[in-house]
Amino acid sequence: MTKIYLAGPDVFLPDAIEIGRRKAAICARHGLIGLYPLDNAVDLAAAHASLAIFKGNEAMMDAADAIIANLTPFRGPSADAGTVYELGYMAGRGKLCLAYSNDPAVYVERVKRNYDVTKSATGHLIDRDGLTVEDFGLPDNLMMIHTLDLHGARLVTPRQRPQDIWHDLTSFEACVALAADRATGKSD
Amino acid sequence: MTKIYLAGPDVFLPDAIEIGRRKAAICARHGLIGLYPLDNAVDLAAAHASLAIFKGNEAMMDAADAIIANLTPFRGPSADAGTVYELGYMAGRGKLCLAYSNDPAVYVERVKRNYDVTKSATGHLIDRDGLTVEDFGLPDNLMMIHTLDLHGARLVTPRQRPQDIWHDLTSFEACVALAADRATGKSD
Repeated sequence: MTKIYLAGPDVFLPDAIEIGRRKAAICARHGLIGLYPLDNAVDLAAAHASLAIFKGNEAMMDAADAIIANLTPFRGPSADAGTVYELGYMAGRGKLCLAYSNDPAVYVERVKRNYDVTKSATGHLIDRDGLTVEDFGLPDNLMMIHTLDLHGARLVTPRQRPQDIWHDLTSFEACVALAADRATGKSD
Repeated sequence: MTKIYLAGPDVFLPDAIEIGRRKAAICARHGLIGLYPLDNAVDLAAAHASLAIFKGNEAMMDAADAIIANLTPFRGPSADAGTVYELGYMAGRGKLCLAYSNDPAVYVERVKRNYDVTKSATGHLIDRDGLTVEDFGLPDNLMMIHTLDLHGARLVTPRQRPQDIWHDLTSFEACVALAADRATGKSD
């Protein structure tokens, strides 16, 4: 049975364990096994707690056939760094890469929420430090978006940002359905 | 000769091409070949420009033996998402993973620059949305920091943030020296 690594900043939510259970239950309904990261099963007061979490998560990724990454923006215009690392790791391992973002806004719009964006003398968008703002009409950095296109399926986004961006699992479930289709060979 | 993929938000700098040349020259002085991403060699007005950049960068990573990632915080408390993706990809491919950050501050301090951080009822640090703020005394998300510890070498940081955080290459050169040592078997 196909195992799916469930990556996302969900582990930082106050109800992190409960949302992990909900995600695993959705996977089970689609005939898949959801593997939820160990951040919450480790004694955070123990010495080397962060290393224990890393090793547990890496072993879980190695055991999984696919990743479903929650790329909803986290403390800035881009996805959570830990989740992005894990997406890259799974792509590097040749695993099926699926992801969703509960914020459908394109990257330029996300940056504008927190930073001034202007045009450079050569006509491209820059932030106040003069660094280019990627303007390809994609929701996040091109490396993440196109790895999904080539090594999985297009980023799943809702038409509109849901009311509860951290608990709405509609787009997550769409990813699970995609993974289930791949697992049973209904599409490729 | 060892090939090093030079990942970082450097590609977004106004003088992106020049800093790529400087990084490649430092690699050459240490007997290594630096491969700098293609973002600036692609016609940005062309259709599918972002996909062309992705494919070029992925092929370059596949050709490289190691990565040196610039994990200096980028539009928020964490590193640039594209760079983090690439670090994960190279770790997944089993390549040597090295990185530096020109900002030595720990993650909690970085978050506090832009967000209110308080204590939850259970005593751990949370942001205004109630999401946990990682508090392991590490500079960034534990997945990135510990992949370096286990698949390369500890994150290189300066004692103090350099005046020009985007152009100071002291910590970058320390990573190149580490890569050169590994390449010639002087250490492991």
